[in-house]
Amino acid sequence: MKQNLLKSEVTPILREAAGTRDFVLPRAKNITWQTLEVTSQDRALIKSQTPKCFWFTGLSGSGKSTIASAFDAVLLRSGEHTYVLDGDNIRHGLNRDLGFTDADRVENIRRVAEVARLMVDAGLIVIPSFISPFAADRELARSLFKEGEFIEVYVDAPLEECERRDTKGLYAKARKGELPNFTGIDSPFEAPSQAEVHLNKVSQTLEQCIAHLLGVLHSIPK
Amino acid sequence: MKQNLLKSEVTPILREAAGTRDFVLPRAKNITWQTLEVTSQDRALIKSQTPKCFWFTGLSGSGKSTIASAFDAVLLRSGEHTYVLDGDNIRHGLNRDLGFTDADRVENIRRVAEVARLMVDAGLIVIPSFISPFAADRELARSLFKEGEFIEVYVDAPLEECERRDTKGLYAKARKGELPNFTGIDSPFEAPSQAEVHLNKVSQTLEQCIAHLLGVLHSIPK
Repeated sequence: MKQNLLKSEVTPILREAAGTRDFVLPRAKNITWQTLEVTSQDRALIKSQTPKCFWFTGLSGSGKSTIASAFDAVLLRSGEHTYVLDGDNIRHGLNRDLGFTDADRVENIRRVAEVARLMVDAGLIVIPSFISPFAADRELARSLFKEGEFIEVYVDAPLEECERRDTKGLYAKARKGELPNFTGIDSPFEAPSQAEVHLNKVSQTLEQCIAHLLGVLHSIPK
Repeated sequence: MKQNLLKSEVTPILREAAGTRDFVLPRAKNITWQTLEVTSQDRALIKSQTPKCFWFTGLSGSGKSTIASAFDAVLLRSGEHTYVLDGDNIRHGLNRDLGFTDADRVENIRRVAEVARLMVDAGLIVIPSFISPFAADRELARSLFKEGEFIEVYVDAPLEECERRDTKGLYAKARKGELPNFTGIDSPFEAPSQAEVHLNKVSQTLEQCIAHLLGVLHSIPK
């Protein structure tokens, strides 16, 4: 399928693309260059996959990142085209201008959701992993996607367990008042009531979590 | 390469991925799940391509979108994984909160560049197509990428020609003062002095422009 094009081959291929478009481009009459546009279906087809957004939500320390990374690696291992969006690649780049006020947290999630939508349009399976504590923000994210594209993944872990682990030392800081509006301490986590996937990091092994996610992915008709 | 995983196959594959990682995941000792992370090289490898950002800049009506769309379609036709970022999918989504003040235009380009960077990290060939009239903004965009990843594509067309075409009727509005700060009318276009690709929509056919771009893409070592 993959071709390296030489310059001499370009014009015939352009003609072919414009004339017959028998590969992955949709057929259409009266093709002009202006209409030679690629749809998200074309982009998905080349990747032989159905684009999806697996939106991970849960407390800090619940295991979101660990599960999201493992899911990502296993999907890549089986030939899927994926990408994890998380604090590491968003907060230092796209959202570097945002802090942690309520308004900024809403805007943080809105932008992540918009980027996820663009990546799904590009044909990817995208895995945003954010605390995203407010139901309204997650619903706004969901509203950007087509029916069935958005899969909410609730990583459920008791606050005590997350605080006990405290891998980043954030709960300790929050308890000292150094991190105001910290989810679970002085800001609420609105647990999803109808998440498509409900994982429990305490009672399930990582393998079981991944198996659950793969089951959901593969139960979706391609 | 593409596998559909059944639940029963998951655990052995997880073990294999964690233990040997002989497919596209990098080898490492003492693998733990936390380190099972996927690099941008892994993501590019699965797509058999070198991720790039082809940043189109030029006046409104210069032909940016037409060339970018055609380039995108031809790349997809040859099996590349691509995505066009343009006003249509950015201004109504991610950047819907931005207007056309100087500050908002800078922020518009900054966010587009950050999204392009994420998409390159995801292994795609991404094609942002924006007037992006200011050299400083384009340099900021370039600075987000690794050496050689960012290819500036200047679509050069005389203002008179763009205004004569005026496909969207924007120049007419700008001349009436209905669109303040319109590039070319009452806001400058700082032409790139060292763009990697300099296209001239007036003297070159669309086929020649695409051939030029493909030549640049394929001259880059994979």
